[in-house]
Amino acid sequence: MEKDNLKTKNLKKEVIKIFKKFGLSGDHASISANALINAELVGAYGHGLSRLKMYCDRISKKVINPKPQIKIKKISGSISHVDADDSIGFVAADIAIKKAIENAKKTGIGLVAVKNSGHYGLSGYYAEQAVKKNLVTMIYTNAPPAVAPHGSLKSLFGTNPICFGTPTGSKIPFILDTSISMINRGKIRVAARNNQKIPEGVALDKLGRMTTDAKKALQGVQLPIAGFRGSGLAWMVDILSGVLTGGNHAGRVKDPFDDFSGPQNIGHLFITFKTNLFVKNYNNRIRENIRKITRLPKIKGVKEIVYPGQNKYKRFKMNSKKEIELSKMIKNDLEFLKN
Amino acid sequence: MEKDNLKTKNLKKEVIKIFKKFGLSGDHASISANALINAELVGAYGHGLSRLKMYCDRISKKVINPKPQIKIKKISGSISHVDADDSIGFVAADIAIKKAIENAKKTGIGLVAVKNSGHYGLSGYYAEQAVKKNLVTMIYTNAPPAVAPHGSLKSLFGTNPICFGTPTGSKIPFILDTSISMINRGKIRVAARNNQKIPEGVALDKLGRMTTDAKKALQGVQLPIAGFRGSGLAWMVDILSGVLTGGNHAGRVKDPFDDFSGPQNIGHLFITFKTNLFVKNYNNRIRENIRKITRLPKIKGVKEIVYPGQNKYKRFKMNSKKEIELSKMIKNDLEFLKN
Repeated sequence: MEKDNLKTKNLKKEVIKIFKKFGLSGDHASISANALINAELVGAYGHGLSRLKMYCDRISKKVINPKPQIKIKKISGSISHVDADDSIGFVAADIAIKKAIENAKKTGIGLVAVKNSGHYGLSGYYAEQAVKKNLVTMIYTNAPPAVAPHGSLKSLFGTNPICFGTPTGSKIPFILDTSISMINRGKIRVAARNNQKIPEGVALDKLGRMTTDAKKALQGVQLPIAGFRGSGLAWMVDILSGVLTGGNHAGRVKDPFDDFSGPQNIGHLFITFKTNLFVKNYNNRIRENIRKITRLPKIKGVKEIVYPGQNKYKRFKMNSKKEIELSKMIKNDLEFLKN
Repeated sequence: MEKDNLKTKNLKKEVIKIFKKFGLSGDHASISANALINAELVGAYGHGLSRLKMYCDRISKKVINPKPQIKIKKISGSISHVDADDSIGFVAADIAIKKAIENAKKTGIGLVAVKNSGHYGLSGYYAEQAVKKNLVTMIYTNAPPAVAPHGSLKSLFGTNPICFGTPTGSKIPFILDTSISMINRGKIRVAARNNQKIPEGVALDKLGRMTTDAKKALQGVQLPIAGFRGSGLAWMVDILSGVLTGGNHAGRVKDPFDDFSGPQNIGHLFITFKTNLFVKNYNNRIRENIRKITRLPKIKGVKEIVYPGQNKYKRFKMNSKKEIELSKMIKNDLEFLKN
């Protein structure tokens, strides 16, 4: 996006140094640091520096391979298969989205599957790369069990995001990056710690009863959005990113924080295509689409109708101007990992 | 799917005769009748014979073209663009899914966009065709305004279904075909007629306040699933099927029942790809995926964890054995249209 300010630059250097210390190449360290810092800047703190120690731990415990031999297999001019060799997820995803962009630029459409990867942070971060190259993109990845399939008492699906990006004819891309979980586990954890209730209809207790008690929800399961429909969407993502790619699926992706018994083998799927395959004036069309929708009459109390990605872009712009605030925990992690 | 019983066969013949009377070719009449009868058999009555008169009315009023010159433009071996020339939607979709299947069989992946089409019934019906040819498929179409974008007081998005299909290694395909609306308008209409309340959280009154009063909801708007997330998914579908393809978008698709001021110009997008692009044992993998998930411990009162498409398949099997029951309204329509 834009240039980092000095403080952010120094922080990034520090993170790169840490990753290199743990065995990543300069290139891979830089890709990984960029992804983590970007998550901080867009305000997705759960995907930012709070995860740095986890990545380093996984390298130390040999369940992330710091020196992967990543193989890209050409299936056709449009289609490629990446075996990430248990690399850190950022690197696998970076290679895959670049390949998907290259394939789409050459043939109109790109389809790139990845196996033997790990948690790669925000799907939207990779979608932005494709959108900057004037492509439409759809990205799927699975994740460790967090959400119960509809009717079930046990978590199995990850928060399995559905991500879609398109150029908008303006500098702010349309990036939908939505999990299929009603609530994320982090929020339940915070509520439990603060003795707060969680909203109605987002989680079940261990017996499968609706609960607003955060502690009981932690022993139970999170619900997918929209019942059977969200459960179906999560299942679709598990099939597209896991079953199809050669990655883990059906609840076999390990929790990166808790389970060091082996690599995650997460799968990802990247689809990219040109905006002008079927119309010559795509940018005008989408500009008009967005204009029409964002100018609809608003519900009382709503200030602005925004499109997906707009708020994140705003936060990024704002946060890029100032120093990244680090929690005490993250400061401690940085100190610990440096030495 | 399977052979029709005699009564169904006769009913289909009758529908074909009607479509031919209204100017469709034998081939197009047969495609359209098959789609309508299939909707009856899977229990999707809102997409079945209750729509027959509407289609005929639109032909009479010259907003569906009974003798379309459908053009298929080859963009590449994988990519095609169909200009449906205001054909009845069934025919456009039938041509497009067949082309998408052909492209995927040849090159591994198919991407087919359609413009100048109309309502085509159930996305899942076309997904089944691709799945029968052992392909994974994703299908998008937009529809007349029914759902308010998040924060807005006015309907603009259609119920914009997201459809995904895959072979399962068994005879019952995995077909997710889910609208992004909390409730369909038909259900609100029925509740209003019977003075019943509608569920909490599915619709707003004309001032944008939550309502469970069906009559007030009819004057207001339906809500997307999961707030901003469902709204984003509906927007994605509008972009993929409308902006990208050259079809109508941003609320411009006309209601087929109420608005005869011109053709609908609905757009559709069909994506298809081979299951064995990245793994050799896809069927085993998906079988195992489904087995694992459907055997999870169940919430009390849940009989069976099913995958998307399973219930529809069961209904189809059951209904195929017996005569299709026609409502009085449909019987009247058939009588009226025949003569």
